[in-house]
Amino acid sequence: MTAEQEARSAQNGSLAYRLIADHLVEGRMTAGEEIALRVDQTLTQDATGTLVMQELEALGLDRAQTEVSVQYVDHNLLQADERNAEDHAFLRSAAHRYGLWYSKPGNGVSHPVHMQRFGVPGRSLAGSDSHTCAAGALGMLAVGVGGLEVALAIAGQPLHLVMPRIRGIRLTGQLPPWVSAKDVILELLRRHGVKGGVGWILEYHGPGLDHLSAMDRHVIANMGAELGATASVFPSDRVTRDFLRAQGRGEDFAMLTAGPDARYDETEEIDLSTLEPLIARPSSPGDVVPVGEVEGEEIAQSVIGSSANPGLRDFAVAAGIVAGRQTAPGVSLDVNPTSRELLQDLARSGAVLDLIAAGARLHQAGCLGCIGMGQAPAAGRNSLRTFPRNFPGRSGTEEDAVWLCSPETAAVSALTGRITDPRRWAEENKAEYPRFTEPDRYTVNLTSLEEPPPHQRAVDTELERGPNISALPELEPLPDRLALRVLLKAGDDVSTDEISPAGAKALPYRSNLPKLAEFTLTRIDPDYPERAAASREDGGHAIVAGENWGQGSSREHAAICPRLLGLHAVLAKSFARIHWQNLVNFGVLPLEFEDVADYDRLDRDDELILDDLHQSLAEDAPPVILATGADGTEYRLRHRLSTRQRAVVRAGGIIPSLARS
Amino acid sequence: MTAEQEARSAQNGSLAYRLIADHLVEGRMTAGEEIALRVDQTLTQDATGTLVMQELEALGLDRAQTEVSVQYVDHNLLQADERNAEDHAFLRSAAHRYGLWYSKPGNGVSHPVHMQRFGVPGRSLAGSDSHTCAAGALGMLAVGVGGLEVALAIAGQPLHLVMPRIRGIRLTGQLPPWVSAKDVILELLRRHGVKGGVGWILEYHGPGLDHLSAMDRHVIANMGAELGATASVFPSDRVTRDFLRAQGRGEDFAMLTAGPDARYDETEEIDLSTLEPLIARPSSPGDVVPVGEVEGEEIAQSVIGSSANPGLRDFAVAAGIVAGRQTAPGVSLDVNPTSRELLQDLARSGAVLDLIAAGARLHQAGCLGCIGMGQAPAAGRNSLRTFPRNFPGRSGTEEDAVWLCSPETAAVSALTGRITDPRRWAEENKAEYPRFTEPDRYTVNLTSLEEPPPHQRAVDTELERGPNISALPELEPLPDRLALRVLLKAGDDVSTDEISPAGAKALPYRSNLPKLAEFTLTRIDPDYPERAAASREDGGHAIVAGENWGQGSSREHAAICPRLLGLHAVLAKSFARIHWQNLVNFGVLPLEFEDVADYDRLDRDDELILDDLHQSLAEDAPPVILATGADGTEYRLRHRLSTRQRAVVRAGGIIPSLARS
Repeated sequence: MTAEQEARSAQNGSLAYRLIADHLVEGRMTAGEEIALRVDQTLTQDATGTLVMQELEALGLDRAQTEVSVQYVDHNLLQADERNAEDHAFLRSAAHRYGLWYSKPGNGVSHPVHMQRFGVPGRSLAGSDSHTCAAGALGMLAVGVGGLEVALAIAGQPLHLVMPRIRGIRLTGQLPPWVSAKDVILELLRRHGVKGGVGWILEYHGPGLDHLSAMDRHVIANMGAELGATASVFPSDRVTRDFLRAQGRGEDFAMLTAGPDARYDETEEIDLSTLEPLIARPSSPGDVVPVGEVEGEEIAQSVIGSSANPGLRDFAVAAGIVAGRQTAPGVSLDVNPTSRELLQDLARSGAVLDLIAAGARLHQAGCLGCIGMGQAPAAGRNSLRTFPRNFPGRSGTEEDAVWLCSPETAAVSALTGRITDPRRWAEENKAEYPRFTEPDRYTVNLTSLEEPPPHQRAVDTELERGPNISALPELEPLPDRLALRVLLKAGDDVSTDEISPAGAKALPYRSNLPKLAEFTLTRIDPDYPERAAASREDGGHAIVAGENWGQGSSREHAAICPRLLGLHAVLAKSFARIHWQNLVNFGVLPLEFEDVADYDRLDRDDELILDDLHQSLAEDAPPVILATGADGTEYRLRHRLSTRQRAVVRAGGIIPSLARS
Repeated sequence: MTAEQEARSAQNGSLAYRLIADHLVEGRMTAGEEIALRVDQTLTQDATGTLVMQELEALGLDRAQTEVSVQYVDHNLLQADERNAEDHAFLRSAAHRYGLWYSKPGNGVSHPVHMQRFGVPGRSLAGSDSHTCAAGALGMLAVGVGGLEVALAIAGQPLHLVMPRIRGIRLTGQLPPWVSAKDVILELLRRHGVKGGVGWILEYHGPGLDHLSAMDRHVIANMGAELGATASVFPSDRVTRDFLRAQGRGEDFAMLTAGPDARYDETEEIDLSTLEPLIARPSSPGDVVPVGEVEGEEIAQSVIGSSANPGLRDFAVAAGIVAGRQTAPGVSLDVNPTSRELLQDLARSGAVLDLIAAGARLHQAGCLGCIGMGQAPAAGRNSLRTFPRNFPGRSGTEEDAVWLCSPETAAVSALTGRITDPRRWAEENKAEYPRFTEPDRYTVNLTSLEEPPPHQRAVDTELERGPNISALPELEPLPDRLALRVLLKAGDDVSTDEISPAGAKALPYRSNLPKLAEFTLTRIDPDYPERAAASREDGGHAIVAGENWGQGSSREHAAICPRLLGLHAVLAKSFARIHWQNLVNFGVLPLEFEDVADYDRLDRDDELILDDLHQSLAEDAPPVILATGADGTEYRLRHRLSTRQRAVVRAGGIIPSLARS
């Protein structure tokens, strides 16, 4: 830290500020400016990781330069054909080759497993998964980014971010029975919606934290992604210490809290004792209402699991609720254990038995239905899930009706067959709220976690590249003049799930870009891939979008695939953070309307000329690009690109820009 | 029984003969003649059941006429999109409507669950699944047939069968450690191959039975299907009594054994004490060798479960082997619990914990990888499975390498990472053979088993027909003259898996025949569906096949789908039993070469004329059909159709023939 930074840090006093200052290698800590951070740890999962490994190959990496890098396999576990298993073999060989840890299929969901086995207070973590932010629960600076940025971080490069502002969220009081951590983050989504966190770090503090376990904090930090926040930060305190000790890693603990007079750019307060069970209605995590308001709706499915409710507590409380009872006949109660270790603890305590006996379908450990890998509900039938997201179609069912809620609400509703406020049910059934105490010692099982081999053995590892694993495409530099047809005009809050779908059909092609590209934007416009592919011969196309284009998952496929189909510019009212960065990384211009009314003036099939682009993107040029319509109308567009990013876009993306330098 | 039958039965003395005599309603018990049997129970699963329910609807059924009919959901559990869940809802509503039991997704695999909850010695069972024969383990007459025959049985019609011959298999001695029931049936497959049981009932007797539990017998009876046997029959003895008592159904027991001087059409003996661990090589259950012969082959997967090794013992012994050890790093050990109840017993005993701790991926209860619903291995990588079948591609991977073996061999090999004879491993590791004692009382859990509603409520049930559920097609009567082009010439032992694939891609279309038809025979010839569909305008086509056409699964889709694509006749060296019957039921002529050398004379794209068909298929006509080639060559073909079946084929299938009468 420079003296100036130190002074600023002390002056600001927030923990987030301190974490950033501790990792700053470039830039000024002024909100909105680009900064570069040292990355201590990385995390990749299989759906984004195959591409990251191909990028490491393209970068010619010898060995990971981070303290810890882990390749998880938790997304593509269905194995409907050979492609999943071939991806797993490729990832394992790449982890061996580049000196990464490898977490086998069945070991569990990346975020909670990472927190348990590798999380260290004060460290920075970059992950190619939008829920990487969950590690903020331990006092880490954890950020979800595009895969290419993780590849660069593994290679020892710093991570570039726009310096966020910091919101202090003071928690007071204690959660009442039948209300849990999920309701805290749903309350924030109720207050701020899915764009409320864009450009912010959410820093939690206050006496209410004493009653939130490390995994409760994980629930809250994890779904900071749904607010669009850059990161979420919890202090590392007594609760953190107990957690790390119970994981057999007491030595990794360090006390880390905000200064007593921490100042925040904005503040708010949640009195935990006033919260009630909340639920997000179909099909947005931001459409939150009290469960009581929607009680009585018939349900066909209830699913417990995912990184949004991964704690032993979450399963144990659900088990306590259903113990000795039976799920409603028309309901499928699906239980997705977080990890092998959690399943062992659950089995040891008898909770697994309670769940199965009550009628639960116990699935393998992993993400499963959370990313549309199975568990799809029937069209229009209500499905309650403890997951983080319910974007339309993400379940695998086109016309789905997915609700997000706590394990308490999900378990009780599975018994009644209807959306039910657990408090009312408890009163009617004289049911006590199941008590849960975190164990002194969690199960630690390294069976499915392979250590990186020593360097000498690593360099001899050959990558096992199955026929479904494509090579990275070569990207052309940005032409000086673009003549683009608007091929799609989209509304607000379009997610990367809609841009590049996951799910059982598309996910197996995550390593096969030309094939995956055929799924691009088909949820919104089934003909887009065909029209887009045709546009390449005429110099490509543009997309016009509303607010928050590219919210949700971090998948960089949502940038590469349309780029492969000829996308050169997105004209939007605003962008989600990770996707904006991914567009830049793959040489697509992310442009914002200076006058949002221009959105209404543009239509599908309009033609736009963007001229003198290299001059407009020169280091010192004003951040404005002009587009001219066929009728001569001028559209003024802002770009927010840093000097570094201007060069990246001109070169056609990060990989060609590195190749050039 | 008529006096004549009673006399014959006493004279013959075999249990199989007695079971048939007890259920005979038509025909003479002379091998090769058609007989009709009263059906006490039926079983359908979801992959074949949606069609059966549509058939019940077409038949205008009011209520099931059997003692017990159960609709299971165990095949389509992945739910990659809404279609599976919609099938489940349809099946549940149909079970309610027609007075069937409904076994929810997650309750378990039909055959073992049926045996546990509904199996009654001495009763007859018809099931639309080829492994229905497993219930022979309890002294039942249990036969896998096409769905339409099950529909007729539910409607109170008798089941038509060709009277089989009876082979007495005398078991002596006791299995040595590390050798189990799976090795017994693999030994029979080694001796006789996949056609060795065609036309036979396999009746087990002898002192060796004392050491085989009811579920061990299930293993052996279940894979009688792989020999092509009509049924397998075990006596109902002390072991059976203990099993039924431990299932809480002691009152359903009846002692049933062969007479002391039972005579069999053929006999053989297996001295259990001489058996060794066996394994079926890729890709036929009949290609059996000692494990010792193939030791050392590297494996990538090992799967324990399915109706071919469903017993608590099978999982407990595997758990005992891996307890305190770790699976090899490159191996996925997948565990597919048979049922909710078994999973409860396993969890209670701690065996689940041993499996998970050692690195197993514990999946939901069901068939899963056994019918290609997930768990597909990488191409060419060895996968060991305790399943009954390893036909090419059935795993979901085109170029798969699937081996069939006992839980002992699968578990030990998962530890070593290579195909390993468990005896050698035990010696090297000084491992004791895990001891297992059947419990006095198994878990009984009816949570996921819905009773048929009373008739009054049943008739008010509306069928929940999702958009993926097609109506039954109307079938035209047989023309008197067929001019057919040979569109495909196939080899020996083509399975119904190859004719109408299961797996995660095709199975969701099991209720959508026009869509499912697009997958017909694509494993053998990707262009067949297109050529076949085009053939319809020219009057249809024929297929030329080798021995045992249509072995394996009972799915009638393998008859309907090609029929929908214009198939009118299959000219084969021989047919598998169930598929032969399905062809007849859907109006396709199953014809056998009188001179097998004619097979060599015929080629793809040859044209054949079959004339005067109605006269050739008249009640009293000789069982011969003449086909004439374009060059005038005459082919003499035999048909084996009973009087009843001749009428069925002339009408275009059973449904039009019933509609006519």
